[in-house]
Amino acid sequence: MVRIAVDAMGGDYAPNEVIKGAVSAVQEKGLEVILVGPLPTLQAELVKYDVSHLAINCINADESVKEGEPPALVLRQKRNASVIVATKLVKNGEADAIISAGPTGTVVASALMILGTPEGIDRPVIGGNFLGFSPNTIVLDNGGNVDCKPYHLLNFAIVGCVYAQKLLNIPNPTVALLSVGAEEGKGNELVKESYPLFQRSGLNFIGNVEGNDIVTGRANVIVCDGFVGNILVKFCEGLGATIAKWLKTSLSGKLSNTEIDRVSNDLLALTNTADIFGGGPLLGVNGVAMVMHGRSQALQFTRAIAQAKTMVESGLVNSLNSELIRIRRQLHNGKD
Amino acid sequence: MVRIAVDAMGGDYAPNEVIKGAVSAVQEKGLEVILVGPLPTLQAELVKYDVSHLAINCINADESVKEGEPPALVLRQKRNASVIVATKLVKNGEADAIISAGPTGTVVASALMILGTPEGIDRPVIGGNFLGFSPNTIVLDNGGNVDCKPYHLLNFAIVGCVYAQKLLNIPNPTVALLSVGAEEGKGNELVKESYPLFQRSGLNFIGNVEGNDIVTGRANVIVCDGFVGNILVKFCEGLGATIAKWLKTSLSGKLSNTEIDRVSNDLLALTNTADIFGGGPLLGVNGVAMVMHGRSQALQFTRAIAQAKTMVESGLVNSLNSELIRIRRQLHNGKD
Repeated sequence: MVRIAVDAMGGDYAPNEVIKGAVSAVQEKGLEVILVGPLPTLQAELVKYDVSHLAINCINADESVKEGEPPALVLRQKRNASVIVATKLVKNGEADAIISAGPTGTVVASALMILGTPEGIDRPVIGGNFLGFSPNTIVLDNGGNVDCKPYHLLNFAIVGCVYAQKLLNIPNPTVALLSVGAEEGKGNELVKESYPLFQRSGLNFIGNVEGNDIVTGRANVIVCDGFVGNILVKFCEGLGATIAKWLKTSLSGKLSNTEIDRVSNDLLALTNTADIFGGGPLLGVNGVAMVMHGRSQALQFTRAIAQAKTMVESGLVNSLNSELIRIRRQLHNGKD
Repeated sequence: MVRIAVDAMGGDYAPNEVIKGAVSAVQEKGLEVILVGPLPTLQAELVKYDVSHLAINCINADESVKEGEPPALVLRQKRNASVIVATKLVKNGEADAIISAGPTGTVVASALMILGTPEGIDRPVIGGNFLGFSPNTIVLDNGGNVDCKPYHLLNFAIVGCVYAQKLLNIPNPTVALLSVGAEEGKGNELVKESYPLFQRSGLNFIGNVEGNDIVTGRANVIVCDGFVGNILVKFCEGLGATIAKWLKTSLSGKLSNTEIDRVSNDLLALTNTADIFGGGPLLGVNGVAMVMHGRSQALQFTRAIAQAKTMVESGLVNSLNSELIRIRRQLHNGKD
């Protein structure tokens, strides 16, 4: 049975919403959850549920991390913080995945330091599908790495391809660089330098795509630096939420409130994927890690735990390692 | 009377839609239009309208520019191209503004080379409001300058402030850097280096804003490089168009087709401003210039000509020059 370590103390609604979501996940999804936090706190929450027959275990961790604390300091000084203890469970083979809605910087840093990255990858990348209108398109990086070199973008592409193959079931994903024009030579220095590297990579590279192509799904894996990606994701969420709200006014009196709510909520679901899934995977580390929004609630934790299970079962991490070796060989041969 | 030079040969629907739009602008807006193109072509179009009492003049220009021709080559070898002749009318004081839907690179290059830029500005910037949900927010650069230095971003901010003052009637516009977090220190190298420069500028700088803040209108002038800005604008247009189309399906059978079209078209108008205005101003050149989308039709030309008139009447260009001097003095004093 897949074992998911859950940082019970991370997020705005910890521990009650985290534990509520974890209990549902165990009930519904056929998996084991290991809750990590101060044992008395965990137990005080768990008594609210009938968990006697459920695969829920608790591991003690009695330090907490506040928003704004420098991740490096947390890693050095708070070795008994719940996110760190939970991540170590994965490292030691006692869990298959870690989920946390704690401060993103700390979750990323602890995954990076404790789990490490496959050879050839410096830093993990945040990515996935963020737009329901183009479900077969993932964009990465979404904010992990704001200043990038061409080889970073290539690594994002490799990670993205493995994700698309394993989790979206796309055998030979198309890859594109996000730019300001489709033609070769259009773009900033980073894109122009990355283009030939992508051409030689053996990936199914289709060239540059533009901003609107994220919506139309012209490529399966769209690559950009984390600065552009993060701004895009947040703009998408903001625009979706604003249009959903505007629709309520615009349709008011013309449709029943139930219908208006349906349309508005459907649109939110299509544009605010993080609200639906509660976060996304941290890719490019030696283990399965999910980084959640701080505002996640029980439903999002349940969904994220289910997604982590799927990721574990997909064999994503091993595939990434073998794909990295293949691409490195291809690039090496291309140079000879 | 304000005189607008119109490149009659630029755009996918030139010259018929350009001239149709220009005739309407003269009829409705109280201005003079100077059409630039091969005289026989212009005259053959104009006979379709009763223009005997209208302030429409024609100037001959018998070379044409194709999409994809290198702008530098056009400027050297096609001195009688309609966009160049039209821009020279502004330079020589025979017109007050130039409008073209020709290839953007060529329109920008000819404005840059022929009109020049105010002292302290290297290159023009494309910018303006691109989202109807936040009408008091402009984002720039939208694609003119893909790789930027901090002083470029500062110039965009200055240009944007003058635009907000003169055209949006905002006396003391708030200015922000577009970034991946609101806190100082969040962002890529460019944003981090620009932050202290903005602080010392004497502009009404409120710090960093995130992608969703473009929608909420947290600042009047949001500054980013042209790579980020162009991707955002195109993503916005693409997402808006996709949601408008999705609404038609989602509301089908629940509202009358007229109502569905109204909601869908309202949303398009709020998210695809370039379709409404047909383009936007090229800012930071010594003259008023409007760069139109190639796909613009008569209605967009009429609106863009009207917008150019407003820009001329606002005294935007002179204000920009005096504001540049003021900010430069402020920065200089800040250093002493």
